[in-house]
Amino acid sequence: MDNNYKQKIIQGREIMKASDYEVESDEKKGLPQPSLSNEKSADTVVKLSKEFEDILTENSFLDILNNRGSKRKYTTEALTLKELSFLLWATQGVKGVIGNNRKATLRTVPSAGARHPFETYLFVNRVEGLIQGMYHYLPLTHELELIREDSEQENKVTKAFLGQSFAGGAPVSFVWSVVPYRSEWRYTVDAQKYALIDAGHICQNLYLAGEAIGCGVCAIGAYDQQLTDSLIGLSKAYSLEEDSEFTVYAAAVGKKVKEN
Amino acid sequence: MDNNYKQKIIQGREIMKASDYEVESDEKKGLPQPSLSNEKSADTVVKLSKEFEDILTENSFLDILNNRGSKRKYTTEALTLKELSFLLWATQGVKGVIGNNRKATLRTVPSAGARHPFETYLFVNRVEGLIQGMYHYLPLTHELELIREDSEQENKVTKAFLGQSFAGGAPVSFVWSVVPYRSEWRYTVDAQKYALIDAGHICQNLYLAGEAIGCGVCAIGAYDQQLTDSLIGLSKAYSLEEDSEFTVYAAAVGKKVKEN
Repeated sequence: MDNNYKQKIIQGREIMKASDYEVESDEKKGLPQPSLSNEKSADTVVKLSKEFEDILTENSFLDILNNRGSKRKYTTEALTLKELSFLLWATQGVKGVIGNNRKATLRTVPSAGARHPFETYLFVNRVEGLIQGMYHYLPLTHELELIREDSEQENKVTKAFLGQSFAGGAPVSFVWSVVPYRSEWRYTVDAQKYALIDAGHICQNLYLAGEAIGCGVCAIGAYDQQLTDSLIGLSKAYSLEEDSEFTVYAAAVGKKVKEN
Repeated sequence: MDNNYKQKIIQGREIMKASDYEVESDEKKGLPQPSLSNEKSADTVVKLSKEFEDILTENSFLDILNNRGSKRKYTTEALTLKELSFLLWATQGVKGVIGNNRKATLRTVPSAGARHPFETYLFVNRVEGLIQGMYHYLPLTHELELIREDSEQENKVTKAFLGQSFAGGAPVSFVWSVVPYRSEWRYTVDAQKYALIDAGHICQNLYLAGEAIGCGVCAIGAYDQQLTDSLIGLSKAYSLEEDSEFTVYAAAVGKKVKEN
């Protein structure tokens, strides 16, 4: 085992443990709270639905739980905008904003201290009513903004996902970025562990919500960090400042084919 | 910002990123695959049910999704053994074992490369038919083994959970440990990131499965590493060997009270 490798394993395992490192958080120091979500930056904004009753299948929760699996084959069918709305709602939907001086969002998924340090980006290839391109979810208003129209993104996304063409060509791929400071402001050196666990909460809801509307989902943990960040337009992955943001997890979604 | 603190933040953020560190995994070197699950070690084993239709509420998946929240108040009511069986099934249930030389379990939750590097321990206070004490789940046979009878564990568990008495006194608390080598065998320095995300998948299913049977769930990210490990009997948290195992996440469960 080379020493660098061994060192990385040790560091990784340490981050998986509860820290006993005593440090005064920026929150305790009275520093201002980071924003709950990135601001809208594009001109084209699409309103999303919150009425989902008519798109859910008859499957019971038990069916959904038992049928879930990583599905890498999808039909050529487009998702409807309502189906996509549901998947965004299930993964990062804001049910309410609480607090006065210290605000927090309550969402369909839990996050340590309700920090929710994530942004959701979509590579949309086939969704009814949406131009092919890259989008950003605005959770506070349940809207999508079109960041970049791109009719040739499939190969670029496949490359960013290390050749996983089922994902690059899927009707839609979710990419979750993390803004670590949103959680570090309170949790300092525990924030990174919490945020990774929280990313898992999100993706599990995508799996189940997908199953609930006849879609297959496959999580993507193996991706090229720099290519994915640059495709999304995240330039501050390696900054130590509060605005650092980088890709942390992804998943592909499409209508299930029977043989899955 | 002190230097040690800054260094920990940098290391934590690096582990959240996809690694581009090239290293030959133990799997590629042809080293033997770690076991899929810890072996049974106790004499008292309880068979669990896989028939859950009669315990699920009428709630639709959408209700379950929207009603989920972190619930810290529970009634004094015990869970039934079937309800506990369902929660164990939903979180780590094995739907099948695949492969010949390289075996893997397919479960109700996804795990990077189907490594599933977790063990489930329970602090049972009030479950019908179970003596109060600490149990270990055997996913391959869907059984529980009684590790230690303990009628005075509530205060010890509360202390391990840093004073969170709602959890120490809950009808049952789940503790997930990680055996990092089960994933490192294949994913080396990416394994730690993947395992934390995977822990999130598990807990999200516990939240939703709880909601589906009228139980409230609250994840526990803040715990005392050494106290929790020692209460479970994990002595190899800091070993660098293949048998290293330590607590990574936890959650309390009980019947929901109306005012939640």
